[in-house]
Amino acid sequence: MDFKRIIIGIDPGTTVMGYGIIGINGKEMSIIAMGAIQLNKFESHYLRLKRIHERITGLVNQYLPDEFAIEAPFYGKNVQSMLKLGRAQGAAMAAALAHDIPIAEYAPLKVKQSITGNGGASKEQVAEMLRRMFGVPKDKMPHFLDATDALAVAVCHYYESSKPQTEKGCRSWKEFIAKNPDKVK
Amino acid sequence: MDFKRIIIGIDPGTTVMGYGIIGINGKEMSIIAMGAIQLNKFESHYLRLKRIHERITGLVNQYLPDEFAIEAPFYGKNVQSMLKLGRAQGAAMAAALAHDIPIAEYAPLKVKQSITGNGGASKEQVAEMLRRMFGVPKDKMPHFLDATDALAVAVCHYYESSKPQTEKGCRSWKEFIAKNPDKVK
Repeated sequence: MDFKRIIIGIDPGTTVMGYGIIGINGKEMSIIAMGAIQLNKFESHYLRLKRIHERITGLVNQYLPDEFAIEAPFYGKNVQSMLKLGRAQGAAMAAALAHDIPIAEYAPLKVKQSITGNGGASKEQVAEMLRRMFGVPKDKMPHFLDATDALAVAVCHYYESSKPQTEKGCRSWKEFIAKNPDKVK
Repeated sequence: MDFKRIIIGIDPGTTVMGYGIIGINGKEMSIIAMGAIQLNKFESHYLRLKRIHERITGLVNQYLPDEFAIEAPFYGKNVQSMLKLGRAQGAAMAAALAHDIPIAEYAPLKVKQSITGNGGASKEQVAEMLRRMFGVPKDKMPHFLDATDALAVAVCHYYESSKPQTEKGCRSWKEFIAKNPDKVK
């Protein structure tokens, strides 16, 4: 099936990185692919970064997403964990940026709110809402749970980017370049 | 000139990223290339990450370094700045990891200590020591200063990796893979 627009959502972590890829046709959304990249089998932090980068590069080459949406917490327990999370995000983002795919990021609260209407919703509530939205059978639920946060950020991006643009600013990186050719050297 | 070993040193930042590439032949070190990647002309954080990744990828393709050494502070002012620094590091590291180049990281204090013998040395003292070490003329000093921290981390890595290995552990990523084939899937 051909989609007019493909969005990859990423829920980055240093032990598991979830991904969810959705296709849009008109007002209809479909799940193209979803899954979780297990990183905890690698002891080395560098091997984890390498795996993130090569898996995201693979997904980008395979599914040719038009946009890349990432869940990004703005607060963390401590500077050490934020540095590690930043590295994981940087390795993932570099894979998208190397293919000129615009990036959008959303705080976890925003993602939950966008899917369920409640920023304090549980992971299970988000998953159940997505399951109904896409008509995933209940017996597929356990596997589905691995990647729901990533799917949620892709759907959140679709909703957010479909809103009428009232504020000044650029919604995407391509738009930024188009509006500011002198800033790109 | 052919070198037995080439080390790229990176001093990552979100406004300037310095690089210094040294070649080793026996006990002789030479500067192969050094410079600073200006990032402050980009307003967008993503354009900065993209530039870091593409420039490091370019340097890796051009100079074919055997090892990648990065200056990495373990403490930061706040979680926000650490997240941004982590992203810059992750984008740079992904470029090295995509080419299977082993990564080593050193705290700023360790780098200063390794070059000058004093962990509290100033940036200028580090630069002056390197200038003498490599016989750089004083009139080349202003340009030289842009990238001295990156050059310092490359030299620090050379010194540290040349020390007799007394502790258990792996010095490089290649060594880690060789010793732990079951951990790499």
